[in-house]
Amino acid sequence: MTYVIGHKNPDTDAIVSSIVNSHIRKSLGDVHAKPIKLGEINNETKFVLDYWKAEEPELTTFLEEGTEVALVDHNESSQSIDNIENLKIISIIDHHKFNLQTSEPLHILALPLGSTASILAEMMLSENIEISKQHAGLLISAIISDTLFFRSPTTTEKDKEICQKLNQIAQIEDLEKYSLEMFNAKSDLGDMDIQKIITLDYKEFNISNKKIGVGVMETTNPAYGLNRKEEIIANMQQIKKDTNLDHMLFCIVDILAEKNIGIAADQEDINFFKECYQTSESNNEIDLKNFVSRKKQLIPALENFLN
Amino acid sequence: MTYVIGHKNPDTDAIVSSIVNSHIRKSLGDVHAKPIKLGEINNETKFVLDYWKAEEPELTTFLEEGTEVALVDHNESSQSIDNIENLKIISIIDHHKFNLQTSEPLHILALPLGSTASILAEMMLSENIEISKQHAGLLISAIISDTLFFRSPTTTEKDKEICQKLNQIAQIEDLEKYSLEMFNAKSDLGDMDIQKIITLDYKEFNISNKKIGVGVMETTNPAYGLNRKEEIIANMQQIKKDTNLDHMLFCIVDILAEKNIGIAADQEDINFFKECYQTSESNNEIDLKNFVSRKKQLIPALENFLN
Repeated sequence: MTYVIGHKNPDTDAIVSSIVNSHIRKSLGDVHAKPIKLGEINNETKFVLDYWKAEEPELTTFLEEGTEVALVDHNESSQSIDNIENLKIISIIDHHKFNLQTSEPLHILALPLGSTASILAEMMLSENIEISKQHAGLLISAIISDTLFFRSPTTTEKDKEICQKLNQIAQIEDLEKYSLEMFNAKSDLGDMDIQKIITLDYKEFNISNKKIGVGVMETTNPAYGLNRKEEIIANMQQIKKDTNLDHMLFCIVDILAEKNIGIAADQEDINFFKECYQTSESNNEIDLKNFVSRKKQLIPALENFLN
Repeated sequence: MTYVIGHKNPDTDAIVSSIVNSHIRKSLGDVHAKPIKLGEINNETKFVLDYWKAEEPELTTFLEEGTEVALVDHNESSQSIDNIENLKIISIIDHHKFNLQTSEPLHILALPLGSTASILAEMMLSENIEISKQHAGLLISAIISDTLFFRSPTTTEKDKEICQKLNQIAQIEDLEKYSLEMFNAKSDLGDMDIQKIITLDYKEFNISNKKIGVGVMETTNPAYGLNRKEEIIANMQQIKKDTNLDHMLFCIVDILAEKNIGIAADQEDINFFKECYQTSESNNEIDLKNFVSRKKQLIPALENFLN
């Protein structure tokens, strides 16, 4: 049995990639490939799976030693299943920077595209693996999600091209309208508790021996987050303490206006991030300007600052 | 300008892969791709380049900060150009285990095949990039070299299949005879000095915080090495001291008999490797049995032993 695993705090790209890569592996002969998720899915992903009538992967947080796993949309152990060190990684398909140590050769396909879904679609197109209407719809959704409908600087021409090809199969009439439906679903946090909101799309990084946590809330309505700022800060302080972070940042990204407001855990971190991003702040709302991409903008700037 | 770089102490696969991947990159639009070598080529590689009338890559051991590089046949910085940390890695094509940290997303294609040449041939075949007779011959040579003409346990069915397809283009009449010519060229060390022999195919590994050097001499005539054992040991002791190694091993691999004799730097290392490989020794000739592959047999056993 090969388990196909997306990263912790799964987003639409992680979930869709685990579903579609399981299908690809099956059609290439790995008949027991099975998608799993490492945490609850967010409302955008729920909307996407419902829309395309796709089955949600099973929640799995532990696998037996030696189990074969195929990673999608991540390669760093800190973002993978907890006991990844004891598992056998046979394949990685990803579009992030790399921080990887293996004890044996393996299959890796990485491309600097806007989503892992784009890489999987490329594979299927170039290897003539039939793409169902459902999978085309799922892949488009993951591309839209990761590139904020081509607004993020991680977007490449290839992503747009692939999306177009996939839509010949998926036949979504108005892609912009569909993307808005996705983003509105993502923004609808209902009565979700604050800690969940902070960690919904949260990643930890080790940069120059500093442990830094960066959470992102992508929304069509920043007020959802800003109105609850005090609660958010209190929760961040708790997380920072509980997980021994050196710094912690929570970003409220206005998808439509392409703006980012950062909230820091405490005054020390306000100063740290203000200096790092060379910017202004007022009432713990750090102006992160158009830095909407954690991968391409926020983290590289942090790395530059700390190195 | 993109420099296409094989590993230090280049073998036939490293050199051929840098030549052929430069060609692939050029035909895909990276018109300034250029192969370079990080050290002198061995006699086998010289034979191969002469046979197929291919140009030897230029020796380059330093590149300006920020230069774009494409790595082939390695991914670990310790095996790459000295100032790799200051360069921009845009692509890696490799068949080894991974130990990689990058600050940005990049292109990676890794497959657990017998040679990097097999991966490049696969790429060309699947993307319909025309393969010249010269390149087919070079790729076959690299596959033969890395798999010891399909004797090494790193060999896969895919390598044999690809070799066959390539030979429809290269038209080598008797592959076995050709492989013997290659191996005899490799075995001909002439008046090469001992230190060069030891480091001709030499790699350093960091395993559980131990720095371990493992050199390999693949030969059709083990006597070439065994007759000069005392000199070899004296040189190994010097290298071990100069480069602060915890352990050092030199392997004389009899390609045709598929046997391996290990020489250790000193009595401490004799004991260490005897225990690690659970084997016997006499006069500092450690019986490494049929462990002819550093990658698939020697290093994984070391890792198991030290973890």
